Amino acid sequence: MEPIRLGMVGGGQGAFIGGVHRIAARLDGQYALVAGALSSDPARAAASAAELGLARSYDDYRQMAAREARRKDGIQAVAIVTPNHMHAGPAIEFLKRGIHVICDKPLTATMAEAKRLAKVAEASKALFILTHNYTGYPLIRQARAMIAAGDLGALRLVQVEYAQDWLTEAVASKQADWRTDPLRSGLGGALGDIGTHAWNLAAFVTGMEPEALAADLSSFVPGRALDDNAHVMLRYPGGAKGMLWASQVAPGNENGLRLRVYGAKGGLEWEQENPNRLWFTPFGEPKRLLTRNGAGALPEAQRVSRVPPGHPEGYLEGFANIYTEAARAIRAHEAGEALPEGVLFPGLSDGISGMRFVAACVQSAKRNAAWVAP
Amino acid sequence: MEPIRLGMVGGGQGAFIGGVHRIAARLDGQYALVAGALSSDPARAAASAAELGLARSYDDYRQMAAREARRKDGIQAVAIVTPNHMHAGPAIEFLKRGIHVICDKPLTATMAEAKRLAKVAEASKALFILTHNYTGYPLIRQARAMIAAGDLGALRLVQVEYAQDWLTEAVASKQADWRTDPLRSGLGGALGDIGTHAWNLAAFVTGMEPEALAADLSSFVPGRALDDNAHVMLRYPGGAKGMLWASQVAPGNENGLRLRVYGAKGGLEWEQENPNRLWFTPFGEPKRLLTRNGAGALPEAQRVSRVPPGHPEGYLEGFANIYTEAARAIRAHEAGEALPEGVLFPGLSDGISGMRFVAACVQSAKRNAAWVAP
Amino acid sequence: MEPIRLGMVGGGQGAFIGGVHRIAARLDGQYALVAGALSSDPARAAASAAELGLARSYDDYRQMAAREARRKDGIQAVAIVTPNHMHAGPAIEFLKRGIHVICDKPLTATMAEAKRLAKVAEASKALFILTHNYTGYPLIRQARAMIAAGDLGALRLVQVEYAQDWLTEAVASKQADWRTDPLRSGLGGALGDIGTHAWNLAAFVTGMEPEALAADLSSFVPGRALDDNAHVMLRYPGGAKGMLWASQVAPGNENGLRLRVYGAKGGLEWEQENPNRLWFTPFGEPKRLLTRNGAGALPEAQRVSRVPPGHPEGYLEGFANIYTEAARAIRAHEAGEALPEGVLFPGLSDGISGMRFVAACVQSAKRNAAWVAP
Amino acid sequence: MEPIRLGMVGGGQGAFIGGVHRIAARLDGQYALVAGALSSDPARAAASAAELGLARSYDDYRQMAAREARRKDGIQAVAIVTPNHMHAGPAIEFLKRGIHVICDKPLTATMAEAKRLAKVAEASKALFILTHNYTGYPLIRQARAMIAAGDLGALRLVQVEYAQDWLTEAVASKQADWRTDPLRSGLGGALGDIGTHAWNLAAFVTGMEPEALAADLSSFVPGRALDDNAHVMLRYPGGAKGMLWASQVAPGNENGLRLRVYGAKGGLEWEQENPNRLWFTPFGEPKRLLTRNGAGALPEAQRVSRVPPGHPEGYLEGFANIYTEAARAIRAHEAGEALPEGVLFPGLSDGISGMRFVAACVQSAKRNAAWVAP
Ligand SMILES: NC(=O)c1ccc[n+]([C@@H]2O[C@H](COP(=O)([O-])OP(=O)(O)OC[C@H]3O[C@@H](n4cnc5c(N)ncnc54)[C@H](O)[C@@H]3O)[C@@H](O)[C@H]2O)c1
Ligand SMILES: NC(=O)c1ccc[n+]([C@@H]2O[C@H](COP(=O)([O-])OP(=O)(O)OC[C@H]3O[C@@H](n4cnc5c(N)ncnc54)[C@H](O)[C@@H]3O)[C@@H](O)[C@H]2O)c1
Ligand SMILES: NC(=O)c1ccc[n+]([C@@H]2O[C@H](COP(=O)([O-])OP(=O)(O)OC[C@H]3O[C@@H](n4cnc5c(N)ncnc54)[C@H](O)[C@@H]3O)[C@@H](O)[C@H]2O)c1
Ligand SMILES: NC(=O)c1ccc[n+]([C@@H]2O[C@H](COP(=O)([O-])OP(=O)(O)OC[C@H]3O[C@@H](n4cnc5c(N)ncnc54)[C@H](O)[C@@H]3O)[C@@H](O)[C@H]2O)c1
Repeated sequence: MEPIRLGMVGGGQGAFIGGVHRIAARLDGQYALVAGALSSDPARAAASAAELGLARSYDDYRQMAAREARRKDGIQAVAIVTPNHMHAGPAIEFLKRGIHVICDKPLTATMAEAKRLAKVAEASKALFILTHNYTGYPLIRQARAMIAAGDLGALRLVQVEYAQDWLTEAVASKQADWRTDPLRSGLGGALGDIGTHAWNLAAFVTGMEPEALAADLSSFVPGRALDDNAHVMLRYPGGAKGMLWASQVAPGNENGLRLRVYGAKGGLEWEQENPNRLWFTPFGEPKRLLTRNGAGALPEAQRVSRVPPGHPEGYLEGFANIYTEAARAIRAHEAGEALPEGVLFPGLSDGISGMRFVAACVQSAKRNAAWVAP
Repeated sequence: MEPIRLGMVGGGQGAFIGGVHRIAARLDGQYALVAGALSSDPARAAASAAELGLARSYDDYRQMAAREARRKDGIQAVAIVTPNHMHAGPAIEFLKRGIHVICDKPLTATMAEAKRLAKVAEASKALFILTHNYTGYPLIRQARAMIAAGDLGALRLVQVEYAQDWLTEAVASKQADWRTDPLRSGLGGALGDIGTHAWNLAAFVTGMEPEALAADLSSFVPGRALDDNAHVMLRYPGGAKGMLWASQVAPGNENGLRLRVYGAKGGLEWEQENPNRLWFTPFGEPKRLLTRNGAGALPEAQRVSRVPPGHPEGYLEGFANIYTEAARAIRAHEAGEALPEGVLFPGLSDGISGMRFVAACVQSAKRNAAWVAP
Repeated sequence: MEPIRLGMVGGGQGAFIGGVHRIAARLDGQYALVAGALSSDPARAAASAAELGLARSYDDYRQMAAREARRKDGIQAVAIVTPNHMHAGPAIEFLKRGIHVICDKPLTATMAEAKRLAKVAEASKALFILTHNYTGYPLIRQARAMIAAGDLGALRLVQVEYAQDWLTEAVASKQADWRTDPLRSGLGGALGDIGTHAWNLAAFVTGMEPEALAADLSSFVPGRALDDNAHVMLRYPGGAKGMLWASQVAPGNENGLRLRVYGAKGGLEWEQENPNRLWFTPFGEPKRLLTRNGAGALPEAQRVSRVPPGHPEGYLEGFANIYTEAARAIRAHEAGEALPEGVLFPGLSDGISGMRFVAACVQSAKRNAAWVAP
Repeated sequence: MEPIRLGMVGGGQGAFIGGVHRIAARLDGQYALVAGALSSDPARAAASAAELGLARSYDDYRQMAAREARRKDGIQAVAIVTPNHMHAGPAIEFLKRGIHVICDKPLTATMAEAKRLAKVAEASKALFILTHNYTGYPLIRQARAMIAAGDLGALRLVQVEYAQDWLTEAVASKQADWRTDPLRSGLGGALGDIGTHAWNLAAFVTGMEPEALAADLSSFVPGRALDDNAHVMLRYPGGAKGMLWASQVAPGNENGLRLRVYGAKGGLEWEQENPNRLWFTPFGEPKRLLTRNGAGALPEAQRVSRVPPGHPEGYLEGFANIYTEAARAIRAHEAGEALPEGVLFPGLSDGISGMRFVAACVQSAKRNAAWVAP
């Protein structure tokens, strides 16, 4: 099968997530990276492209969108891996030209941008994929399938958290700078950066979204303009409740994304730092340790697993699963076929939901943690 | 050293925590149980006393208080291990007569009772000890000492939870019945039963109490009159924040009491189910696993440890530490001496604090999780 | 029920395990310690006895045995908690006089002593209990019952180890001195001190003993006369195989006693440092986490459990189980009744087996790890 | 940089490790797979090649070696992923023609083949890389560097094991069939398949190899011709000792490769199933949890890490590290440069060592576990 021709916006020298996208795109051999506008600085863009052996390098994503759209061998899809405020612009340019967009989260920096992007995306015949990559973990797929099958009974509790510690002190770095700058990050600090992951993961696994939330936000590090810690209570339609904690100032936590879901008949517990294990407790029975691809693995988990149980798959494999799901969707789309059964990836509505989450938290926090509908 | 003569109210046949108190009292050889009013049912009280070989059995705690106070060899202290609504009555009777009271938590069922009890306790020359037993764990003492010494820097975050699953479905048992009955349990269900432990533990370790809380309470099991799940956000004076989760409907959790505290310089993490380990992360350094009595153990932890590291101590040892601390206090008190340095146990003010916590949560919940001062 | 009158030999000021025995005897209220010859030094013996409030203190165990045997209220049982070379002497004195002996392990320092003791014990009407205390853990009882019930199928593999680190460097202390002295410790260093525990635990759980072993012994610390590390391969009748590792020079191991047993149908895994968990894998199914007294707990484990699951019991509770089992046996014995069903404790034959283990390892090691029948 | 042109022998439809090699080769973008003799069955070879989009498919590896060597754009390296008895043949063909060989372990099925291969490899100017992939894990590099730097002091103990359970019962599958067939697997069953990994890992990390071993081998499953369990004791020059356990019949173990190394000054402990954590205990201090790329990570580990700590890397990333190290070596080699500093991969001598290990174990087992020099 021919690899999908992929472009990239952002991700040049010194950038973080661009390199991850490149590995993710490569891992299953579904994509060939051929073009890029890798940096806001044209010189750096060119140097980065040369280093990566890209066929075509552009100074600017507008130029890139225009020219690639015109080529017969132009890119079919583009990865957008720029800071939050630089998502909507490129996404719109490419979508308008029918080029599929694989964009990192959060959707945009502002709700206004999100709405503009949504309008274009809905009008475009191209696909929009949002890399909430944790939904690519096989055991997250397993958890989702188990809950959908009713293994937990009616859901009651969703305890989700994403704790980090790298912003415990004031840091000056490429990555920290824009994340703590409202103009580039948006309304949310930790909220947008990792809170949206927690929010999305809970929704993906449980199949439900809160109808109201109450948020208490803090900026612990002196001088920090955005939240570095978010405490949020959640209320779901039907009476389930939840708690969401997002923090970048919790020493000892690297990427502590943890999800626990409890229902009338059982519970599920999962931690991102050791993603190959999922705890399942049918109420009244011993806890069972489900392993990726091991005994008890469901087809939903197996189809996104590559190696036998006991051989750990990690962050990059989960990320690659999103890329490969996107490839399946793109191929079907280009062949005029329906999305193949079972293919799953976060998209526009997840992005909008994340934006609403951030906005609702900020609004709630301003109103002293009043309940706000996201 | 002569053992302290101890009496007991409650804890007869079929009761739960009375037996734990008896072991805790016995473990370090500091007490001899000699008298009891072990049940509300006189026949069962007598049968229970005979089984335990008690010297003196009473039909009723009032009778017991009156008679024991008159004997030369009467009890010096009494353990109160009855349901919540039956704490204040006996406690007052014994305190009035100068008999030390070791009472289980929560302090009482109602705030009115708590106030009455407080008045008597303050007037009494006898001691009042509240068995928030988790404060007896050596590594909890260690955590407290480390925080007091500034090892975490200024505190920012307190994440505490106590999750159980035994009330996931409607249960009919001696223990479940009164716990779900407002007349005997008080305003709180899970809140009073385990939430107070979480609340107390956080306060004991951090040395600080929230100035405001916002609570969302649920009763998931149909027909349940009291909360079986509590989600609470916490605000501390000085800006620290916290989350408290108490649940009795989380399948897969037996006694999941967990505390995580983060400050500007480091973090501490502890779990009750494996209490011989404490995680300490000085920010920017690898996590360290502190073990009870192991390398790095502070005197505060060592003085309440009995065996070398790697030989686990558990719930009963922690509980016994409260009893033995109480014994030290009682002996000093009876000798007219000051409390020996380092002796620590929860008392009246902790009990009042717990009652305020429950009341504030209930009030907040009624007001749609508004912030309430506890 | 009247407590059993207990005496103690050894365990005076500065001693280690004596205090543990006292707590273990006390925990379930089955014993009253009334007499002792607590030290080889009469002054220290007296001071220690006074501190503990013992009714009767003796200069010497012979004197104690003679006098106690003559008293109407003399001790019914004696705990022997002296160094290894000082087990046989007192044990024989008390057994001869019909006083039950609760002796710590290993049985004796030499095989000659063991044989002498065995002869007396077999002739005595009194009971002999050996405190291989790890057999008192509830989940060890569970494992034994599961294997006996065939849950693992035919056994194939026994992987057992006991790793410590406290003798990584040369240490001078009361406890280290005699343990590294062949005259007081016997043929084995780590072998006798902790290897016998591992050996005994494997036998207790699996119900089988090796017919041959091959041992490689080391003394890593310069100047050490006895082994501080033992590597042993095991062959069982019927073809099962095993490995036993005992070490006191493995930095990072406090009391790393671990047992894994595998059969044709499943596996069991357990670690002493967190003894409230037992992993059970029926072949081809997900691992199950059995907790002490939790879902799936068998009667054999429940009868030696005190508190609900999730409230950890530890080393002292396991040790106390041996004492309480012994009390049941002693009471039945004194009432002329058969041993109550289910009562289990290590005794003379386990002690002899341990001595054979040590001797066989030493002999094998001398013959360059040749196979030797223990 | 141009990708290295890679070929593959084996790894067609239904094969296991070939797909892993392809991902590993792709992950860092260093290779392009262009040719293959993917199966012993020419039709399946062709179908497999078509599926993978290979430019050139061959019926037979001899044909492939001959033709590729002649092309200007012929492959520069070949991956050999056939069963053990089919390593030497292709390896020799390609090495003879100056094509670099990346061969899976064990080196060959027989010692005779190994010697033939060694001769050719030594004479060839091409490189020979053996995919003992676990040496690619970043924290294994860290452990190796720490030991080399003396962080553990003089080494004393090496406890290594690789436990699986998939052969607990008789299985009929492509993978099981040849592994239990002496003609295709060689002298060892579990020994060759996973024992060699354990052996290699211990050597890689400690920098030393045993001078003698004593092995007890079993075939627990009726009718099995080769060992499915190996118990081995190890003696190192200078007095260190070790134990190696390899088993494919231990229910509950998926890929339980675990390494523990202890020295006079400290200990290191690592488990493959959660490879992003390494325990380090400096003797007398609390255990430290080193995480991949986290605080305390050494350059040796960082250079083979891709993502920040807390984002797990797994089996495929470790495998890819071997491929990428090989790419660095190949590029240097083709440029006539020395191997870049720090580049590490297993090679011929490791393969020979593994063969010696298997042979020595088998010989020792035949001589009733006598000591044999590997
Ligand atoms: N899915 C995840 O887990 C995850 C993890 C990290 C980051 N992210 C998201 O990825 C995005 C990038 O984050 P990062 O940490 O890699 O940031 P970064 O600062 O490391 O990299 C951003 C890159 O974008 C480039 N850039 C900025 N403006 C540009 C423009 N106009 N044209 C071309 N390039 C431009 C910069 O030069 C830089 O190379 C953010 O939206 C972030 O939220 C997601
Ligand atoms: N510290 C802890 O961890 C912990 C754990 C469990 C229970 N508790 C507390 O201990 C108390 C008892 O709980 P429990 O689970 O043992 O309850 P339980 O129902 O098992 O036992 C209560 C006992 O009190 C007796 N009783 C009731 N009224 C009496 C009266 N007037 N006079 C004498 N006896 C009377 C009952 O007969 C019964 O024996 C509660 O306040 C509970 O909150 C604390
Ligand atoms: N079951 C276990 O887990 C465990 C743990 C530790 C020790 N032990 C065993 O317990 C025994 C004691 O070990 P320890 O560590 O407590 O040793 P220790 O040196 O701390 O104490 C030994 C005590 O015996 C006393 N003693 C010696 N000779 C005596 C005599 N003739 N009469 C009276 N007292 C005498 C000493 O004065 C000292 O008080 C050993 O056999 C050891 O193997 C068992
Ligand atoms: N590094 C590791 O962790 C690891 C893991 C698994 C396997 N391995 C090793 O990889 C090798 C293959 O194992 P596997 O499990 O993938 O086996 P497999 O049976 O799944 O695959 C072997 C493949 O080789 C092909 N083959 C056989 N003879 C051939 C020939 N003459 N020409 C071309 N193709 C031929 C077969 O058709 C098949 O596709 C073995 O040596 C094994 O030890 C290593």
